[in-house]
Amino acid sequence: MSKEFVDTIIYASIVVDPNNETTPARYKHAIIIDEGLLIDVLPYEETMQLYQAAEEIYLDHHAVMPGLINAHGHAAMSLLRGYADDYELDTWLNEHIWPAENAHVSASFVSLGTELAAAEMIKTGTTTFSDMYFFPEAAAEVVDRVGLRAQFATTIFDFPCAWGSGPDDYLEKTLRFTSTYANHPRVTVALGPHAPYTVNDENFAKVVAVAQEHELPIHVHLSETQKEVDDSIAQHGMSPVVRLHKLGAIKANSQLVHMTALSEEDMALVAESGASVIHCPKSNLKLASGLCPTQALLNHGVNVAIGTDGAASNNALDQFSELQYAAMIAKVQHSDPTAISALTSLKMATIGGARALGIDHIVGDFTKGKHADLCTVRIDAIELQPLHNIISQLVYTQSGQKVTDVWVKGHRLLNDTKLTTIDEDALAAKVAKFKTQMSTN
Amino acid sequence: MSKEFVDTIIYASIVVDPNNETTPARYKHAIIIDEGLLIDVLPYEETMQLYQAAEEIYLDHHAVMPGLINAHGHAAMSLLRGYADDYELDTWLNEHIWPAENAHVSASFVSLGTELAAAEMIKTGTTTFSDMYFFPEAAAEVVDRVGLRAQFATTIFDFPCAWGSGPDDYLEKTLRFTSTYANHPRVTVALGPHAPYTVNDENFAKVVAVAQEHELPIHVHLSETQKEVDDSIAQHGMSPVVRLHKLGAIKANSQLVHMTALSEEDMALVAESGASVIHCPKSNLKLASGLCPTQALLNHGVNVAIGTDGAASNNALDQFSELQYAAMIAKVQHSDPTAISALTSLKMATIGGARALGIDHIVGDFTKGKHADLCTVRIDAIELQPLHNIISQLVYTQSGQKVTDVWVKGHRLLNDTKLTTIDEDALAAKVAKFKTQMSTN
Repeated sequence: MSKEFVDTIIYASIVVDPNNETTPARYKHAIIIDEGLLIDVLPYEETMQLYQAAEEIYLDHHAVMPGLINAHGHAAMSLLRGYADDYELDTWLNEHIWPAENAHVSASFVSLGTELAAAEMIKTGTTTFSDMYFFPEAAAEVVDRVGLRAQFATTIFDFPCAWGSGPDDYLEKTLRFTSTYANHPRVTVALGPHAPYTVNDENFAKVVAVAQEHELPIHVHLSETQKEVDDSIAQHGMSPVVRLHKLGAIKANSQLVHMTALSEEDMALVAESGASVIHCPKSNLKLASGLCPTQALLNHGVNVAIGTDGAASNNALDQFSELQYAAMIAKVQHSDPTAISALTSLKMATIGGARALGIDHIVGDFTKGKHADLCTVRIDAIELQPLHNIISQLVYTQSGQKVTDVWVKGHRLLNDTKLTTIDEDALAAKVAKFKTQMSTN
Repeated sequence: MSKEFVDTIIYASIVVDPNNETTPARYKHAIIIDEGLLIDVLPYEETMQLYQAAEEIYLDHHAVMPGLINAHGHAAMSLLRGYADDYELDTWLNEHIWPAENAHVSASFVSLGTELAAAEMIKTGTTTFSDMYFFPEAAAEVVDRVGLRAQFATTIFDFPCAWGSGPDDYLEKTLRFTSTYANHPRVTVALGPHAPYTVNDENFAKVVAVAQEHELPIHVHLSETQKEVDDSIAQHGMSPVVRLHKLGAIKANSQLVHMTALSEEDMALVAESGASVIHCPKSNLKLASGLCPTQALLNHGVNVAIGTDGAASNNALDQFSELQYAAMIAKVQHSDPTAISALTSLKMATIGGARALGIDHIVGDFTKGKHADLCTVRIDAIELQPLHNIISQLVYTQSGQKVTDVWVKGHRLLNDTKLTTIDEDALAAKVAKFKTQMSTN
């Protein structure tokens, strides 16, 4: 019998596919990749009988799983990691983060910061990220070059910023950006009205109209703190969720970020709409924002994804660490040690993220025909032994630091812990130069 | 001028000493070690003028800091990591952990499990740990051999266990163990009455009498859950803290572990006593136990240390991860982003641990004359750049995975990520064999 010839076969100790209900962990299986697509996942013997490949890779001490999807962040803020920690939120924003952004944010800042974020995300197993920041053109150029997959939510405020003069300008720039990337295989675009308290009803209406006309999702910070909810009730007579729902901004493809202070009515509205919630546990903890009721939302049938938020409020973009926090804090929050199990947490950070970003027909699990976006984690470290349960160990230990290889659409972006599309030394030198400039300004 | 000759000089990019109020981070400083003691911390030039050493080590891309102190755990339970996760507490204990312990715990289980835990703790920067388990003789033999520092809290229940027939037997064995290790430079002993609900008043009285006579601290699980408190009030008419205080078990050298459900009266009693609290954030989260009010306790003047608890409820013994959780969750819990700052968290995991275990005259910071217990963390990884704030980055990123070197009492237990006193491959083989035996039993 003649064997089918494919691009790549990865023989792995364990193939973990969180969205595979019957067998999320399969031992001694191989992943078969051709033309960027996942052709099949088969036991070793069957693979050797059926396929041969230009590149056959043996990962004998590794778990291979779908690449992680970081569903919310501000990539370029990696340049501000640890710049201002342990402050009150107002002090943090008004005296530290916003002045630093005003002084430094530009297309070149975004380019450098996004490359820095990309390096960290690739090295810790993320294959797709959602970005919400200024100068998306500069960020997308980096993504195109380094090979990651990304959604860019273009920021929209009532007021001007370094990127533009106001809402009409932001929307115009968004449409231009959208048409530039219309046929890009790894880039999608969303509208990113910043938050209910920075975008008024009139401008939300414009955003909703553009979203509808151009079939763009809306990605928005929502109900991040109890104070935001209290202020909204005082000003608008309703919660931010109810207000945005009335404005038509909460639809099946909407992406609602943070969502810590929710009423039953809010949760029911979100569930009914089909919108996704994006949970950013470390940012919510570090800024004392509150806790998103993840298990309650899942019980309502809401899709929940996970994001790191920006490095300035984290300070890492290690999505494995983020999903560990998601599992850990849900248990105390819901007074239930079965809340957000290890497997659920992995699903939220893979297929949940894909659903939130509207790309679950392309990535998020190992369904045949999806794009080959995957990461591998070494499982032979002494601190993982005895390996009673691979799913538990992936979630409850520091797996992001054990990632060795990453593929996006069949391209290997990380090869045995080395970046293939980013010159790490040159990047470090540029970041060091930026830090020096920032310190002396 | 002739130079003084010492054993070791470590030239480091940054010396971090969290308990140094004026300069917790000093750049381009060296640590001078002789006969196991820390002689001085000086700038490079001064060091070169004053000292020469048999061994001069250049750590140009590293922060050097006091070794971490893991103030509560059950080391040998590393053999049960991930064995049973995401269950209700009763199911977890009654159907999984206790049956597994009954079937497997023996002196050889403890020896193997403690060596496994030691390997992980050394590799993630821990130099001292407190252990509370069965067969402390077997665990202490491992500690003596691998070079770590440890406190053994001998377990005392009302009922028999694999280690002994009951309280009198446990106390007798404890005293024998104490006299064996009376002059050991790295081992101390405490009495470990398991918990208020497993030790009755009569047996607590015996423990308190032995503690007083032999000047041993008491190390006890206390107020781990609201249920424990509610049950105590129903049965004894008072909280577990009040009960143990009345029984004389809460004194200046007492070590109170967990402490999630505390009244103002409880906190005032603990503060007045001078006892230390040991916070185990990941275990408390994972088992949905509750949250220790760490900042409130610090505000009361209570010393708070940090522990990983056993690997079965964590599943790691990475104390850097633990102190990150301590900083992160305190902020939401107290609705205050300034609660448990990065620096405070590092202090809790170093000098706080030393105070809790009664060894702060020996370790916990870089005071001249203390034992040379230290760890080093690589700080040149791309995901730490730009390094605006070393203290923030040590706490809010995955520093435990970047530890390269560890010294205890001047002996190098980890040399550029390689264990020097444990044969890691042989250990892994023994653990794999145990797992096979466990699976087939």
